[in-house]
Amino acid sequence: MSGNSIGKLFTVTTFGESHGLALGAIIDGCPPGIEICEEDLQIDLDRRKPGTSRYTTQRREDDVVKIMSGVFEGKTTGTSIGLIIENTDQRSKDYGKIKDRFRPMHADYTYQQKYGSRDYRGGGRSSARETAMRVAAGAVAKKYLRACGVEVRGYLSQLGPIAIENVDWAVVETNPFFCPDANKIPSMEEYMQKLRKSGDSVGAKLTVVASGMPVGLGEPVFDRLDADIAHALMGINAVKGVEIGAGFDCVDALGSTHRDELTPEGFTSNNAGGILGGISSGQDLVAHLALKPTSSILVPGKTVDLDGNPVEVITTGRHDPCVGIRAVPIAEAMVAIVLMDHLLRNRGQNADVRSATPVIPAATS
Amino acid sequence: MSGNSIGKLFTVTTFGESHGLALGAIIDGCPPGIEICEEDLQIDLDRRKPGTSRYTTQRREDDVVKIMSGVFEGKTTGTSIGLIIENTDQRSKDYGKIKDRFRPMHADYTYQQKYGSRDYRGGGRSSARETAMRVAAGAVAKKYLRACGVEVRGYLSQLGPIAIENVDWAVVETNPFFCPDANKIPSMEEYMQKLRKSGDSVGAKLTVVASGMPVGLGEPVFDRLDADIAHALMGINAVKGVEIGAGFDCVDALGSTHRDELTPEGFTSNNAGGILGGISSGQDLVAHLALKPTSSILVPGKTVDLDGNPVEVITTGRHDPCVGIRAVPIAEAMVAIVLMDHLLRNRGQNADVRSATPVIPAATS
Amino acid sequence: MSGNSIGKLFTVTTFGESHGLALGAIIDGCPPGIEICEEDLQIDLDRRKPGTSRYTTQRREDDVVKIMSGVFEGKTTGTSIGLIIENTDQRSKDYGKIKDRFRPMHADYTYQQKYGSRDYRGGGRSSARETAMRVAAGAVAKKYLRACGVEVRGYLSQLGPIAIENVDWAVVETNPFFCPDANKIPSMEEYMQKLRKSGDSVGAKLTVVASGMPVGLGEPVFDRLDADIAHALMGINAVKGVEIGAGFDCVDALGSTHRDELTPEGFTSNNAGGILGGISSGQDLVAHLALKPTSSILVPGKTVDLDGNPVEVITTGRHDPCVGIRAVPIAEAMVAIVLMDHLLRNRGQNADVRSATPVIPAATS
Amino acid sequence: MSGNSIGKLFTVTTFGESHGLALGAIIDGCPPGIEICEEDLQIDLDRRKPGTSRYTTQRREDDVVKIMSGVFEGKTTGTSIGLIIENTDQRSKDYGKIKDRFRPMHADYTYQQKYGSRDYRGGGRSSARETAMRVAAGAVAKKYLRACGVEVRGYLSQLGPIAIENVDWAVVETNPFFCPDANKIPSMEEYMQKLRKSGDSVGAKLTVVASGMPVGLGEPVFDRLDADIAHALMGINAVKGVEIGAGFDCVDALGSTHRDELTPEGFTSNNAGGILGGISSGQDLVAHLALKPTSSILVPGKTVDLDGNPVEVITTGRHDPCVGIRAVPIAEAMVAIVLMDHLLRNRGQNADVRSATPVIPAATS
Repeated sequence: MSGNSIGKLFTVTTFGESHGLALGAIIDGCPPGIEICEEDLQIDLDRRKPGTSRYTTQRREDDVVKIMSGVFEGKTTGTSIGLIIENTDQRSKDYGKIKDRFRPMHADYTYQQKYGSRDYRGGGRSSARETAMRVAAGAVAKKYLRACGVEVRGYLSQLGPIAIENVDWAVVETNPFFCPDANKIPSMEEYMQKLRKSGDSVGAKLTVVASGMPVGLGEPVFDRLDADIAHALMGINAVKGVEIGAGFDCVDALGSTHRDELTPEGFTSNNAGGILGGISSGQDLVAHLALKPTSSILVPGKTVDLDGNPVEVITTGRHDPCVGIRAVPIAEAMVAIVLMDHLLRNRGQNADVRSATPVIPAATS
Repeated sequence: MSGNSIGKLFTVTTFGESHGLALGAIIDGCPPGIEICEEDLQIDLDRRKPGTSRYTTQRREDDVVKIMSGVFEGKTTGTSIGLIIENTDQRSKDYGKIKDRFRPMHADYTYQQKYGSRDYRGGGRSSARETAMRVAAGAVAKKYLRACGVEVRGYLSQLGPIAIENVDWAVVETNPFFCPDANKIPSMEEYMQKLRKSGDSVGAKLTVVASGMPVGLGEPVFDRLDADIAHALMGINAVKGVEIGAGFDCVDALGSTHRDELTPEGFTSNNAGGILGGISSGQDLVAHLALKPTSSILVPGKTVDLDGNPVEVITTGRHDPCVGIRAVPIAEAMVAIVLMDHLLRNRGQNADVRSATPVIPAATS
Repeated sequence: MSGNSIGKLFTVTTFGESHGLALGAIIDGCPPGIEICEEDLQIDLDRRKPGTSRYTTQRREDDVVKIMSGVFEGKTTGTSIGLIIENTDQRSKDYGKIKDRFRPMHADYTYQQKYGSRDYRGGGRSSARETAMRVAAGAVAKKYLRACGVEVRGYLSQLGPIAIENVDWAVVETNPFFCPDANKIPSMEEYMQKLRKSGDSVGAKLTVVASGMPVGLGEPVFDRLDADIAHALMGINAVKGVEIGAGFDCVDALGSTHRDELTPEGFTSNNAGGILGGISSGQDLVAHLALKPTSSILVPGKTVDLDGNPVEVITTGRHDPCVGIRAVPIAEAMVAIVLMDHLLRNRGQNADVRSATPVIPAATS
Repeated sequence: MSGNSIGKLFTVTTFGESHGLALGAIIDGCPPGIEICEEDLQIDLDRRKPGTSRYTTQRREDDVVKIMSGVFEGKTTGTSIGLIIENTDQRSKDYGKIKDRFRPMHADYTYQQKYGSRDYRGGGRSSARETAMRVAAGAVAKKYLRACGVEVRGYLSQLGPIAIENVDWAVVETNPFFCPDANKIPSMEEYMQKLRKSGDSVGAKLTVVASGMPVGLGEPVFDRLDADIAHALMGINAVKGVEIGAGFDCVDALGSTHRDELTPEGFTSNNAGGILGGISSGQDLVAHLALKPTSSILVPGKTVDLDGNPVEVITTGRHDPCVGIRAVPIAEAMVAIVLMDHLLRNRGQNADVRSATPVIPAATS
């Protein structure tokens, strides 16, 4: 398959550019009989929506999603679900000035070389605007997973130099940073104020957790659950790193202390992040991702134009000083899509399996 | 597709358990007319082979690969290539004692729950032994890529607490650690001696670099090159984290300093790791991966048996105190397979493309 | 992948029900730089459009297609192309009466059993209305193929008992039957008049020919070109048989007379229909397909209701007495999509191939 | 995926040439816990095996299959199953004389042009010898389907001019033709004697029937069950036509007589061949396929050599005068593989479905 699809049995295919007529997606393989309405999708779209606080771009996108097919009398029919978000606020004039030059760290140069031309209006297909459709499709997966007892949630674990110290899920939705640590919010606000004044941008680290996980999701040896999650998260714009569980901390760890032991009362820890041998263990699935600083900044930079001549570039327009913040719902959506796909795949091959071994409870942490 | 295949146009499918009759692979989609012989594959298999130094398992595996089809009169025919490695040294008796219990941090428990039973002989399909076939298939991709000017190489960038400081490619193949920094080899030897005596294990960090990269490999939006590399590397046994370029260091970086600027003379840096918008930029592709400590250690640990009763486990047998070391050729192979696949995919869709923009040279670092 | 996609590199995914808000498609993998506009697609949509003659359903569908993405400044960008056709004339009331019973030979019963419920409005997803999107997507493939010298055309080769005797391409588009034999048109008109009066329906046989074929399209052993064409054509509503070249006539043929011999001046015949060993030979690709009579007729029939009780059914509403007629553009589209996909796949794997053997001209017939 | 794989969840990938070291296959996605041994596969391999009667090639192939992985303690483990058949009787010398010329109606010419060279030993990959692996893989699917109550069987429905009139399953395995009509066997024997003397070959028509079918297999709209069966059967060497149910007879049929009506006691007929809207109806699945005459005959024919010069060709060596005969087990295997794949796919997406409508019994015919 070409590149705009993800998933084997639960497949999401998307289209749409930043400044085209609309964004769209087709969800193929969704089980029938699931109650789905546009509000279910809108909730997550609104969480991702820009312009909700002064710490994100002031560009307004209503992101109103319409379900075009696959749902009849309030329930999924089992056929393909068509989704559309019409583009409203476009402001093409903002982007005319970068038509003939490549923004550093953007996809402008690579699209130009790969395709011989590019849609220069706000990055076209390479714009993070495309992720709205992932969030809409992910919302369908999240609803189904929730009915299966699986909850997929995310939070901001580090903003630039500010790392969180505590995770209180109740705090996450109460602040514009998706920060789970109430004590860190004031410093984050202060930091973002300064950052905006400087016209610069900063990176971020996010964490996604899936709780209530069943045992057995993931297909050895290449379509491991962790491999597919790494694929899904690294495929989000600006992501440069993905970790499962302890991630890179395992490099200088000893096997004797790093391992999660098994007891009838439960696993003693969760350094594995809920995946063993590429298969979910029933422990919480824990993934971390690193997002680079927004490349669109007011600080002048060196680049070349379409003919390869040296020029200077300043990206005006309305951009997030930290793209990581709004990526929380996107990361949740991608993890949900992968879990949904593996849930159906596992059911397809292993529906008959009955294991005599009791399920080990997850570590309580 | 089910889970034992990777790649869309250049597809590798594998079979085989640690203690079965043989390991095998089918390479589908390899271009015709490529000179390939068993020696080409054996070189990398020998680099991965255990028992080559006292820092790896003393288990002997000859890993002699045979090409069963797809090569005629010394050249690939364009049809599917069958590969076989017969298992020789098996020593099943070593594994009998873990037949009825789950080794912590291993796939034993998840396989048992997913499939209702498991091949307990050395981990069966979940054993790293399976990766020998990846190395063999990767060698075919590496040879083709080399003919296209692309060189895929890897090294050990950190062994437990010991991080390298310099990269000298000439040093990598001269020591059993694939360490590129001559000054670090003595301390690595000393560390491994102590580790072995303690019966414990440790993690490692590896780096893979592809130089001579063409511009334009990678398919937006889901099959990005970085997403597929993350999928391929996270799919290697024991890997818990993957980074592209600066990776997690981007979290507290500023956009103004993090970005790689473009000049006619070349990119000014390579924090992006050679990928922009999921498409190769022509800069060196740089990926890092973290491998957890070997789970098979002599230090006793808690676990449960098939009936869920608490028991103690000690993994005797012959195991690597640091699985990361031997994973260097595996990581190279996986990156090569992904690049090969994207080379063919890009050629399929974009063969007609002629860009007017000159190619920007890679950063010299 | 789930069932609403076709093609590996040139992938078409569709959504939409007969009486939903809209039909849609995503074309993924289309090469960049191709001049495409909505008129290009509308031409074939209009050829398929009902209500154009009194021999087809009088149901009016404007079938106006909109390109939502993937085309910028008149050319394809290489990213996914989104297509939409909004449903206008729906007349749901026509279908209320079959809400609780299964129309014989329709998908009503199987959808109900597979999904537990169904969109009973005009067949929902199982309606031939869905094929409008295939025609739109196929038009993109046809345009690209035409630029490569490949022309995909179809005609009606038999209407009920009336088989054509001559093929004059100039005649095909001059009559509502896509009949290539001017002498047969009057009898077809007469036959259809009687058929309509009787409230019955009849089957048809179509032929699709691709001329100007390159040698080498098709991937042994399972993705043979003929296998993929059979898949694409058998996947059209009401199709019950597919033939390549001489098709079923080969059953009582002798090898000595059936074979197409090769001479420097050209092949001596084309019983193979342009495919040898699953790979295009450069001869005209010739495929035939059989379509069953429309199941929606005024003649009363026996069936059961949702509870399994025996009931009688009469399908009123506006239906084609011969669905085969309007299927000509659909069959062309499916063949074009398959050829486009294999053109890209073959280029991806075999772009380097240079054969020393001269191309044998096609048989002149 | 490239061309040597078939199936989405139950995936079979094959390798091997007529005169290479071995044939092999990987079955990926087979459910765990199925009792499988080599004898299960050997039964069907022996049914296909040449040299069993004087009506097939006297070339001896022992076709002894070995299970290399995926089966442990007599049961499938859920991981990939590796299969190998070593080539024994090769006689390369027989084929030397056609090294430099293309056999008419063979794949020689198209392979040469597609790949730039070819394995001329007995057709290499294009040889029907490759189908042995399909039979072995199909045997696994047949065993699983049988446990689900689905029986896949085939027979020869026409040999050249001799069409059968009655189907008695008990007769099929009692004669070398897989003929179900005892009255036709003598004339078939006589016909084949004459044919062999003349050095010519003839075509054949086969029929495959799957009884005990569940309702609901098949994925609209492109992966319909009939579309995938057409793909699988047209992908068998020499097949030029595929029909489902009444097939081409539907062309001059009327809707009022052709339709299969539904009654609580059962369907009144089975012209649909067990598939409605691309989904199995629970009636017997009935498919027919046409195979062209063997192209390898003793009658001299015109062709060209590698340089395009006109030459004459006579195919000596040991060939079947009617390849159709031995294709019965191959056709059964392909249908079984498709059904197995759709069984798992349907279970994956629709496991939760409970329909209130009772199942309509199959037509008794």
